[in-house]
This record gives sequence, structure tokens and C-alpha cells, in this order.
Amino acid sequence: MKVKGIPTRTIWPLRADGAVGIIDQTRLPHRYETVELRTLEDAARAIADMLVRGAPLIGATAAYGMALAIRDDASKARLSEAYKVLHATRPTAINLRWALDEMMGVLKPLPEGDREDAAWARAAAICDEDVEICRMIGVHGMDLIREIAERKDGPVNVLTHCNAGWLATVDWGTATSPVYHAHDEGLDVHVWVDETRPRSQGAALTSWELLNHGVPHHLVTDNSGGLLMMRGMVDLVIVGTDRTTASGDVCNKIGTYLKALAAKDNDVPFYVALPSPTIDFRLDDGIDIPIEERSPDEVRWVPGLTRDGDISEVLICPEGTPAANHAFDVTPARLVTGLITEKGVVEADKSAIARLFPERVAAE
Amino acid sequence: MKVKGIPTRTIWPLRADGAVGIIDQTRLPHRYETVELRTLEDAARAIADMLVRGAPLIGATAAYGMALAIRDDASKARLSEAYKVLHATRPTAINLRWALDEMMGVLKPLPEGDREDAAWARAAAICDEDVEICRMIGVHGMDLIREIAERKDGPVNVLTHCNAGWLATVDWGTATSPVYHAHDEGLDVHVWVDETRPRSQGAALTSWELLNHGVPHHLVTDNSGGLLMMRGMVDLVIVGTDRTTASGDVCNKIGTYLKALAAKDNDVPFYVALPSPTIDFRLDDGIDIPIEERSPDEVRWVPGLTRDGDISEVLICPEGTPAANHAFDVTPARLVTGLITEKGVVEADKSAIARLFPERVAAE
Repeated sequence: MKVKGIPTRTIWPLRADGAVGIIDQTRLPHRYETVELRTLEDAARAIADMLVRGAPLIGATAAYGMALAIRDDASKARLSEAYKVLHATRPTAINLRWALDEMMGVLKPLPEGDREDAAWARAAAICDEDVEICRMIGVHGMDLIREIAERKDGPVNVLTHCNAGWLATVDWGTATSPVYHAHDEGLDVHVWVDETRPRSQGAALTSWELLNHGVPHHLVTDNSGGLLMMRGMVDLVIVGTDRTTASGDVCNKIGTYLKALAAKDNDVPFYVALPSPTIDFRLDDGIDIPIEERSPDEVRWVPGLTRDGDISEVLICPEGTPAANHAFDVTPARLVTGLITEKGVVEADKSAIARLFPERVAAE
Repeated sequence: MKVKGIPTRTIWPLRADGAVGIIDQTRLPHRYETVELRTLEDAARAIADMLVRGAPLIGATAAYGMALAIRDDASKARLSEAYKVLHATRPTAINLRWALDEMMGVLKPLPEGDREDAAWARAAAICDEDVEICRMIGVHGMDLIREIAERKDGPVNVLTHCNAGWLATVDWGTATSPVYHAHDEGLDVHVWVDETRPRSQGAALTSWELLNHGVPHHLVTDNSGGLLMMRGMVDLVIVGTDRTTASGDVCNKIGTYLKALAAKDNDVPFYVALPSPTIDFRLDDGIDIPIEERSPDEVRWVPGLTRDGDISEVLICPEGTPAANHAFDVTPARLVTGLITEKGVVEADKSAIARLFPERVAAE
């Protein structure tokens, strides 16, 4: 996607400099700063401190972290050390583990002298595969937008929650990919961007992406979607997911379930865009997904840009107010119109999902 | 209710000084400051700039605003001018119009010389009537909490949205009155406080009230209620309303509809606490209620207390991001378990409401 008119990915190799470039996403949307990762420790810190975020981008960064780690020492001991350090950064992130296992599987059998080249090559391939998955999600999702565009006047209004965008992946994003594809094809598309409290990823990241790429949009509070749908101002909802069960229950950022209820109540199609590795074929019922509880201070303090141009935060409640901060909720499959995957759009239904991914079902 | 241990109302006459005292609610929860209104313009500004907010308190302030307006000129022309200026401040607020109509009805027939005394007296009576109405809402609503307390262990968990609290009325509040009554009676009650973006009245005001009065509570983001209900962590929802139709459609702060949908989906009772003047017997369908659109900057900028202890605000999105800011939504009667009024709890149904308020129906 474009930043200041320049096509950009969220991570890029700078091998001649022995480095990997990333965007420091903790500074967005108020500062656009890139950072060069030069060591294993740099890569680990970028993941742990959330300079990079989003499952696919975390995986890609970990893969390049392995390449950086073995520059001076490509021994098996060093590989194991790098694996351990990188895996410890976000132990629950499934893509992180997957990318590290991929790298180990490729590198370990090779002679030491061949490992560095192979590491850079495999990390690049992991990135390219992610871009291709996101591109295909966009191609399939764009058809849904096109169908609506063909039967109405004016823009197709898409509502999205959180940032399942370009910044969470290597390029295109998941929930945003259909939007970018539609926009690039010349379809008239407009996005309602849910702020997504408490971390405001919609306000900070999705808005920034859409603004940079030139896609018409409006930021709205998380409270607004119901009214917008009731008034016919939303044509479809597209969100991402952190984990979807084999039956199509969708675990995503807190608040997603409320939008799905409103969509159902107003006959607005509700789609979930996801790379198929996000489907957990070992789990049927979304109620079994553990929900992360994060610091209450994320609810109490809101970060942003001050009137003086500093990045800081403000307290929105009395000093003594306790808060609770559940990070995700679960949207039951009965509220989901369909899943937009790299292999096509599929009903949120156990047998339909199994038919599209028979190899995944067989593997469990 | 109490502030720093002292029983306090939200508005009080200071006639010897030709003034009316209010709390500057825009400074809460970080500063507790009172303001003296001396002119029609002061009163209009206090309403428009939301130093006072909440339907009953807006009505009370408008009533006193009429008294302030006619100090030097109590002519019919001046009365009409005051009516017009005050009515224009918040066109959606039904109580505002009701209070102004009340004042006009009392003042217009009187000789000019008697109008000022009558205005102060009628405004004071409007305040006392509001206190009594809110007290009775609390008495009736407490029964609902008590019934739940009798059949479960642990606290009764009430979720509320926005601030339909003491600060929105003259005393007790509407949605909070049952909670305060239950707490004062020794029932174990705990409140989930919706932050209520964009103006964060839940975080700033409801939290402040509950903290001052000693009621156990947790602040949550507006996105959280669905998950809490799905997990059985909410026993009932009680919200306020700015306007309810004769059929029981409820216009309230944006986001209320989403909580009503979640309550329905999880068999959680959803109650609306309201003084009966809030019922608009001239309107049947909630879809006909005009929805106020406020400044996009309320969505883009979040006010609060900085790390340095100043009251300021931070920008949560890029400079160039456009935002939309609808202030209310409409919850259809089918999602409402009941209305808690000063005359008792009634089904959100046209004939049930008409049976409880035959005099209001006859008046239309």
C-alpha cells in the first residue's frame, strides 16, 4: 500500500546493510518513523514492544530475526537460542511459533555456511506468501463489494472494527484488502472506521492507512454502528479475526459481537476476512477460547497527540476508578454471513469450512 | 447525593444574588467547581456547552433561565425571546421544551409585575418535583434489584450506559436511582460503567458519582458489554432516555441500542428508567426522532487529565481524518423489558403505557 504516494510494505530486507526495515507502529498515526533492526535483540524488542503488531507481521519479523541472529554464528546452538528469544516475546501468538518452526525446519538440515542465505530467502518467501494470501482475500472480498455497487447508487459503505489492515500484515491487510482492491479498481467505496477502544487501533491505524491510500472514510465511535445500520448507512461489515473455530465462531477484538448483533438485526451482511491458518480446527465452540485480560490502565488512560504536539496520554476517569479490560469477544457463527478466505468466501458453518479446507481437517 | 460527605443538588437558587448555582460538569471528574448563572445567556450557554446535561437538569436549568431572563423585562416579548433562545440550545431534549412550556403556561397569564416571583417559585417546584420523581423511580427500580439479589449469591451486577445519574437530574438520577436506593438499603450491588464515547460521561461522571457515594463499580469500554453478558456477568441493564415514544421506543445516548441487542441475545433484562415527562405521547415510532449530530472533534479529541495534572485533550487519529458524530440512537420497544417510571414499572407497550398515564394520553 502507499505511504505518501510510495508503495510500501510493513517490513523490508536491507541485506546489504545487514538490516531489516520496519515502521515503528507505536508512533503512528502522529509520527511516521522507520526503524532498522540489526540484531536478534532488535527484532525481539520490536515484537515485544509492539513496534510491529498483527499476527502475520509478527511472524515475518520473527523470521527475519532468525536471519539477523545467525550473521556471525550460524551454529545449531545459536539457532536454538534465537528461537527461544524470539518465541518468548509474545508466547501466545500462533503465527510467531509457526514462522519460527518454518525457519528451523529449513535451516537446521543445511550446512552452517549455507544457512544465512537460506534464512534471508525463507523470510522473504514467508512475506511474499502472506502478501499473496492477503491479495486473494481482497480479490474474493472485492466481489462482494462489486455486487452491492451494481445494485445501488452512491458509495458502498463498509464498516470495520479494529485494524485488520495493511499494518497488521505485510501488505493489503485482511479486512481492508477487499476495500483497497475495490478502491483501486475504481469502485466507489467508503469506510466507517470504528475507533476500537481501548487501544484505538481503528482511530490510530485504520484511519491512517485509509487516509494515506486515499480511500474515503469517516471515523466513528464504537457506539455508532447500530444507528448507522438502522438508518441504512452500512452496506456490509468486514472485520478480521484472531482465531476462528472449525464451526465458524469468530474471536476478534472486543466489540465485534455487538456489531454482528446490529448487522443481524438490520439485515446487513457481516463478513470476517481471514487467512485460513487463523482457523483453529481443534476448537468447535467459541466459548472455549480464552479471553486475554489486559491492564485496566488501557481503559483509564487514552494516548494521543497533545495540543503542544507531544505524544502523551490523558486520564478519562477519577484517579480512584477501577476498570476491567477484556481484549476480545466471540461472535457466534449464527451471526456471521460468511468468511472471506484466500480460497474464497465460505459460509460460517462446520461442514462448509471443512469442504474448503479438507487438508486441514485431515491434519487434525 | 453526597459530594465530599455533604448532601448536594445539581442546581440551586441564589435569588438574593440574582443567580442560580450549578456544578460545571465539563470539569468533572478532575475538578469539582461550581458556577453562578446570572443571565439568560449564561443559562443558555450552560445548556449548550453542557456545563449542565441530562434531560431533567436541562429542564430545570431552562426553567431558572426563564427566571433570570425576565429580571429587567418581564414582557410577553421577552418571555418569547427567552423561550426561543433556551429552546434552541438542545433541540432534541424533550424535557427542555416541557419545562419551557410549563414556565410559559404559568407566567403568561400573570400581570408583568408578578411574573418574576412566580418564575422563581415555579422553577423551584420543577426541581422539587424532579427530585420526588427520581426518588420514586429508585423505589420501584430497587424492587427489581432486590428480586435478583434474593435468588443469587454475590453482587447484583448492573450495567449502565452514559450518565443517567444524579448529575443528569436534580438529585438521585434516573438509571442510577435504583442502584443508590439498593446500595443505601444494604443490598450488594455492583455497576459496570460504560465509558460512553465520545463524551465519556460514563467514565467521567457515573464513575465519579459512584466513587463519591461508595458504590462498587468497574469502568469498561463501550465494546465490553456484549462479552460481559455472554459470560453471565450482567444481571440487568438500566439506562436512561432522552425521549421515549408512546409505543416505548427509546431514544438515548448513542450505543444504547447495541447493549439492548446484547441483552436480548443473552436473556438479560433491559430496563429504561425515566421520569414520565420524558415520554413523548405525540410520537409513536422512534425512527421519527431527529438525531442530533455534534462536532466531529468530539470523536477525534479525547479530553482528560494529563500526566502533569492539567485538563487537556489528545488527538487519537491523524490530523486529516474526518469523523461523524451522531449523539443518540433509538432502541425499539421490542428490545426493552420495561420502563421504570415514578408511577411504577411498565411494559414498553403502547396500551400498557397509556393505561399508566391516561391523563397524558387525554391531553394529546
